[in-house]
Amino acid sequence: MKEKPVLNTVLSPKLLDLYNIKDSIFVVIDVFRATSTMATALYNGAKKIIPVDNVSKCIEIGAKTGGITAGERDGKVIEGLQYGNSPAEYPRSFIEGKVLVLTTTNGTKLLHMALDKGASEVITGSFPNITAVCDYLIAQKRNVILGCSGWKDKFNLEDTLFAGAVIERVKEHFTIHCDASLMASEMYQKHEGDIKEYIKETTHWHRLSAFGLEKDLEYCVTNDVAPVLPFYKNSELIAK
Amino acid sequence: MKEKPVLNTVLSPKLLDLYNIKDSIFVVIDVFRATSTMATALYNGAKKIIPVDNVSKCIEIGAKTGGITAGERDGKVIEGLQYGNSPAEYPRSFIEGKVLVLTTTNGTKLLHMALDKGASEVITGSFPNITAVCDYLIAQKRNVILGCSGWKDKFNLEDTLFAGAVIERVKEHFTIHCDASLMASEMYQKHEGDIKEYIKETTHWHRLSAFGLEKDLEYCVTNDVAPVLPFYKNSELIAK
Repeated sequence: MKEKPVLNTVLSPKLLDLYNIKDSIFVVIDVFRATSTMATALYNGAKKIIPVDNVSKCIEIGAKTGGITAGERDGKVIEGLQYGNSPAEYPRSFIEGKVLVLTTTNGTKLLHMALDKGASEVITGSFPNITAVCDYLIAQKRNVILGCSGWKDKFNLEDTLFAGAVIERVKEHFTIHCDASLMASEMYQKHEGDIKEYIKETTHWHRLSAFGLEKDLEYCVTNDVAPVLPFYKNSELIAK
Repeated sequence: MKEKPVLNTVLSPKLLDLYNIKDSIFVVIDVFRATSTMATALYNGAKKIIPVDNVSKCIEIGAKTGGITAGERDGKVIEGLQYGNSPAEYPRSFIEGKVLVLTTTNGTKLLHMALDKGASEVITGSFPNITAVCDYLIAQKRNVILGCSGWKDKFNLEDTLFAGAVIERVKEHFTIHCDASLMASEMYQKHEGDIKEYIKETTHWHRLSAFGLEKDLEYCVTNDVAPVLPFYKNSELIAK
């Protein structure tokens, strides 16, 4: 019998160097809110998303591509950009056919790191596209890294819960010897039934709800409301 | 009312830079087995422990101090050293009044890092001395960092469970806004009753039990069998 592929969970971008990610499918996770917004915009017909790691690049590429420039700091649209980082800002009526140039605090950095460090394929994961992610991972039969973006490199619960949710769905298809995966899986099992309440305990909720973003955060832990699979290639995210 | 001091949990030495540890009490945690062995040797009357980060230094300082040299790799005493890293090797009848020069994979490194990065006080924590640690933290009323050594910088469950056990006991005395602490606390709550069974799920158990160290590992999750408080100062651990 062929051995199962291996799955590991990385709890912070700072820990990425400890793992061999070559030839793996790398799932970038930034539940609040980058990867949830990315899935939503692509599901609603965005032509592509160009994730960039700073504001001046966002403006420059926005001008070059005619794309929408977007990014938030502290819950407000960044000066010089047009839109924010809320999935609610990107309904089909607005985003269809357009290019979105997006700068975010945590998720964008990990997208770049994953490719730089040799992942063979980089996709984004979030509750809004969880089934698309899991179906793909099971079908590919290749090693997987679940990469949590965290908050400024610190461990966070919402990305961990998503990693755990994925593991719960795919674990029979993978070899998993990884304490981070075991922990993520148990935390998800514990909170599967009360996730919309439980996220109110997280530090990220406290930070973002202070900006009135509660509805956003609840959306970001809702399964399969943006069933699409975003691939990151040539500095662009496109839906497959 | 005076504000409560702050407690944070650091899940890997690699994440230490993300925290301000100045003026904090830093608890170095390496449950399997460095900090468990350190508590045990000091409780059993070792004069002091000199933790060193490599074998040649261990031999050199052992010769200089007349101390016992100790260290293991892959469950065996390292060539050139006299004893291993098992708490069972250090009963009172053997260790009382002696100097122990100990090299370990993970815990020693974090002891050094904590002082280098400015912690005002560094102590070691393990289940064998958990009450001594918690009583001290509550009494001091100062900021606390619970520092998990992990395994070669990777997240591990046994250190996380110990952090959670401490948090459960001290949480009313601290301000805790830290997802790592919340997770650790919940993982401990979940496994408080079955910890000797649960540790068999961890990657570290699988590594060490292959060397026949099951009894050691069970000892290392037993509360208060070595009730002592090891302080790290001037490159030495002594009991207070």
